[in-house]
Amino acid sequence: MNYPNNIKKQYKRIIESANRGMTLENDLNITNEYYKDQGIALVYKKPTPIKVVDLSYNKNKVTINKAFFEKASTTDYNGIYKGKYIDFEAKEVNSTTSFCLANIQKHQIEHLFKVLEHGGISFLIVRFIRLDKTFFISSQVLKEFVNTYERKSIPISFFEENGYVINTGYSIRVDYISILNNLYFGGFNESN
Amino acid sequence: MNYPNNIKKQYKRIIESANRGMTLENDLNITNEYYKDQGIALVYKKPTPIKVVDLSYNKNKVTINKAFFEKASTTDYNGIYKGKYIDFEAKEVNSTTSFCLANIQKHQIEHLFKVLEHGGISFLIVRFIRLDKTFFISSQVLKEFVNTYERKSIPISFFEENGYVINTGYSIRVDYISILNNLYFGGFNESN
Repeated sequence: MNYPNNIKKQYKRIIESANRGMTLENDLNITNEYYKDQGIALVYKKPTPIKVVDLSYNKNKVTINKAFFEKASTTDYNGIYKGKYIDFEAKEVNSTTSFCLANIQKHQIEHLFKVLEHGGISFLIVRFIRLDKTFFISSQVLKEFVNTYERKSIPISFFEENGYVINTGYSIRVDYISILNNLYFGGFNESN
Repeated sequence: MNYPNNIKKQYKRIIESANRGMTLENDLNITNEYYKDQGIALVYKKPTPIKVVDLSYNKNKVTINKAFFEKASTTDYNGIYKGKYIDFEAKEVNSTTSFCLANIQKHQIEHLFKVLEHGGISFLIVRFIRLDKTFFISSQVLKEFVNTYERKSIPISFFEENGYVINTGYSIRVDYISILNNLYFGGFNESN
């Protein structure tokens, strides 16, 4: 198609960011499917909310003719592990040095903190694509960062010191449950 | 518009059922908003998943030009109360005598049972519109029914004997948390 150059660039950026988003999302889908099949945990990605502008009906089939994506009111993932409520947001970044907090909506961060107040387990999964490293960072630690520092981006050194590298495997692409075991279910491993 | 009569009837049925659905859904939204504001519980309705067929991009604005609603893979509501994972489905029916199980997808019922296996709290909320009565029925009880009886609809007598009537108020339109308190958090009230 013959889009003007600036539109092409923007389109390319959206596609790239969609693809970027898909990698970690896809890995998490496979992981969650595995956790579910093995009876380990039940965790689902919430659908993206949309605002429907125009609908039509044909027999019992409803077609959406116009709609827009809306901002999610909470985080993308939640579920249950060993009776406990778990809740997290997952992000991929291109930077090799830091994770900009603007990548997450402010109300999503507040949601993670609220889950803590209600006695649940909440955290962030951040993948530094170019380093091929995926970190787990608990909301407690995230809260400490937000309350202590003025800066709006978390340097990778902070992840290395206060987070955990998530192991990757074939079926368990992003094994965040083993981190939860270590942190919250009495299985803390000194070698981690 | 000049739809043929049968299409008109179907359209009317969809609209009516959408409106029917909205009443309990709306009451639950108000209730959950109240629970959230008061710091009692965090419970959200999941967005309906859609299958996007056609998208367009204009600057950074994404417009969905064609999409269809998909079947939800889990139940409509989940969240956290006192650290515990809670999960439920809510339905309204016109019948005054029974609740037909076909109102809920089979995999949604299985999901409710799975939540139990993982140590969570799951249940059904069923409103008999014409009786102006809203029942709470735990997944344990639902499981008993499904395992014991051949029939595909739950008679209202079963709700009366094995469920709980949910109180309605102004801010707490569907006060299911007080039922949870009674059943799972040591606040069982003999008068209930």
